Amino acid sequence: MTTHGAPALDPSADIVDLTAAIVDIESVSGDERALADAIETALRRRAPHLEVIRDGDTVIARTHRGLGRRVLLAGHLDTVPVAANLPSSRRTRAGREELVGRGSCDMKGGVAVLFKLAVEADAAPVDLTWVFYDHEEVAAADNSLTRIAAEHPEYIEADFAILGEPTSAGVEGGCKGTMRLEVTARGVAAHSARDWVGENAIHHLAPVLERLAGYEARRAVIDGLEYRECLNAVAISGGIAGNVIPDRASATINYRFAPDTTVRQAETHVREVLAGLDLDIAVTDASPGALPGLDTPPAREFLAALGEDVPVAAKQGWTDVARFAALGTPAVNFGPGDPLLAHADDEHVPVADLEESLRGLRRFLAPPSAPGDTLAP
Amino acid sequence: MTTHGAPALDPSADIVDLTAAIVDIESVSGDERALADAIETALRRRAPHLEVIRDGDTVIARTHRGLGRRVLLAGHLDTVPVAANLPSSRRTRAGREELVGRGSCDMKGGVAVLFKLAVEADAAPVDLTWVFYDHEEVAAADNSLTRIAAEHPEYIEADFAILGEPTSAGVEGGCKGTMRLEVTARGVAAHSARDWVGENAIHHLAPVLERLAGYEARRAVIDGLEYRECLNAVAISGGIAGNVIPDRASATINYRFAPDTTVRQAETHVREVLAGLDLDIAVTDASPGALPGLDTPPAREFLAALGEDVPVAAKQGWTDVARFAALGTPAVNFGPGDPLLAHADDEHVPVADLEESLRGLRRFLAPPSAPGDTLAP
Repeated sequence: MTTHGAPALDPSADIVDLTAAIVDIESVSGDERALADAIETALRRRAPHLEVIRDGDTVIARTHRGLGRRVLLAGHLDTVPVAANLPSSRRTRAGREELVGRGSCDMKGGVAVLFKLAVEADAAPVDLTWVFYDHEEVAAADNSLTRIAAEHPEYIEADFAILGEPTSAGVEGGCKGTMRLEVTARGVAAHSARDWVGENAIHHLAPVLERLAGYEARRAVIDGLEYRECLNAVAISGGIAGNVIPDRASATINYRFAPDTTVRQAETHVREVLAGLDLDIAVTDASPGALPGLDTPPAREFLAALGEDVPVAAKQGWTDVARFAALGTPAVNFGPGDPLLAHADDEHVPVADLEESLRGLRRFLAPPSAPGDTLAP
Repeated sequence: MTTHGAPALDPSADIVDLTAAIVDIESVSGDERALADAIETALRRRAPHLEVIRDGDTVIARTHRGLGRRVLLAGHLDTVPVAANLPSSRRTRAGREELVGRGSCDMKGGVAVLFKLAVEADAAPVDLTWVFYDHEEVAAADNSLTRIAAEHPEYIEADFAILGEPTSAGVEGGCKGTMRLEVTARGVAAHSARDWVGENAIHHLAPVLERLAGYEARRAVIDGLEYRECLNAVAISGGIAGNVIPDRASATINYRFAPDTTVRQAETHVREVLAGLDLDIAVTDASPGALPGLDTPPAREFLAALGEDVPVAAKQGWTDVARFAALGTPAVNFGPGDPLLAHADDEHVPVADLEESLRGLRRFLAPPSAPGDTLAP
């Protein structure tokens, strides 16, 4: 346990003050140590009911009450680079109170809610695992969940997982998978004043773009949630010089597929879409999606605790819920903040979202007999 | 006149020895001074019938015999960068003698022929202007003909021009024009997992590539020569990140148009080809072509001097003949060497081409009564 320079965090503080304090500990990916130290220190001092494990800059805290069912709640500590949007500030806009600053939305609001409840929820009806992890906003290989799933899968075993990513305090179930493919057309180089002795590789991409432009994406409804697939060229390049017919041109295709589709099925589908064209096709990157699992008992209990009014939707973007799905754990996204504001320079989180997320999770984690619906810290 | 370090050139030497000596004076674009010095020095010493003008690293030499008709013969002194192919060497390959080395084909073989004849042809039936110029293998704006046409158009006034570019000792008449256009499609950026809130700019290029791929290029026959037009995407680019629907994608189109078409007509034509598509189209670069002018009296005399067996074809690539055409001077390309070898690492010129080019031009420039058809130096 290191505490050099880590400001103390008070988990009993008001949720907005606590979020602001966490936002103000800068933690761009690779620089999470001070925040991990502060979380670890506070959990060790203030939550004697938890076993606290430090692994790199990830802090894992668990109850061991023998309750037979375990729920995991996770949030990443890192942010994308600061854009002159620290320290945090508060504002009221169109009658709405907001906390502004890098990470406020993605996802230190969620981290604050989880951190507060980790200390508070010492009598939940299920065993709990809290995971505060590093390196989420960078390559998947560097994400600490990749390391922990490989080296200590027992740390993150659970019957149900809640990822505190921003969902405007609604439930976003599962997530779509994602695959990137490099599609390359070949030709024969020639001087552009004598194109008949060459063969233009860029022109060979015409039917690729045509098929993508005309593609009718599938909408898969799973557990009542609609996952809209997407198939797009996200990059294209080709050209040697202004007077040369290029012998090579390529496009990067990104396929976002519904979670009822495997990576192998996804690749087969893209190859079918491009069937009959003379192309080199290589998968450069693929991650399966996650089924929402909303019909599993812990998910039903979670939805019941949140109440009928909570919005429930499919998660369209890929998130770390897919890592839990890969371990056989159904998982949902639930946290304060508008996901469209993640990474924006004007990143902010509505105070009402913070309070609503806290209230919802507090209800879910309340001791079996307690009402749980109170905002008092 | 500066002569520091400029090796002496002997215009009375055998044409192969003379070409080798010129090749061995390295003169990559921007570094033409030593060769210009050597040419200038030799002309001043050995050709008292010529007025010699030095302008930068361009050497212009003219007769003023009052013959009422003037023919200009031009060659550029510079080469593309050396690729371990200097000094020159000689070889016999498949029974054919060749001089090998950077510039041997493009276009020091032609320069050697012109230089030799500049000294020799003191009794031609027409007045002569010889132009040895710099900076041809670089941007048009740096080409010394651009400067001279603007500052001293009188230096290059003529009734007919012969450019000694490699044509395998055939006549290549005129040249096609060239135009580059930047074609940009706009869209709306979005996360690639939610493409329905965006609009993919790369996909908007599909009909552009489709029209280019299906384009049936015109073949214009002018003075019996066939100019094949070409319309191609020579570059394409787009993409922001692997998970973003791009809001912008663009292609560079190169149109090579027959010399009966003006730059304005060329632009109108490309816009017609792309009509109805939502694109920004901007011309970034345009040079008109040059009509072959083979029916003009000096051209007919030139062709007659070369004889019936000389191959006559259209020049497909753009060359400096278009600069003379722009000044109202019909111009042809005629010189030793295969144009497809220009810029190649294995650049070389057949000895037979050197001799044939020299013989042809010597016949054209022979005094009215002389036979002229001799190889004796």
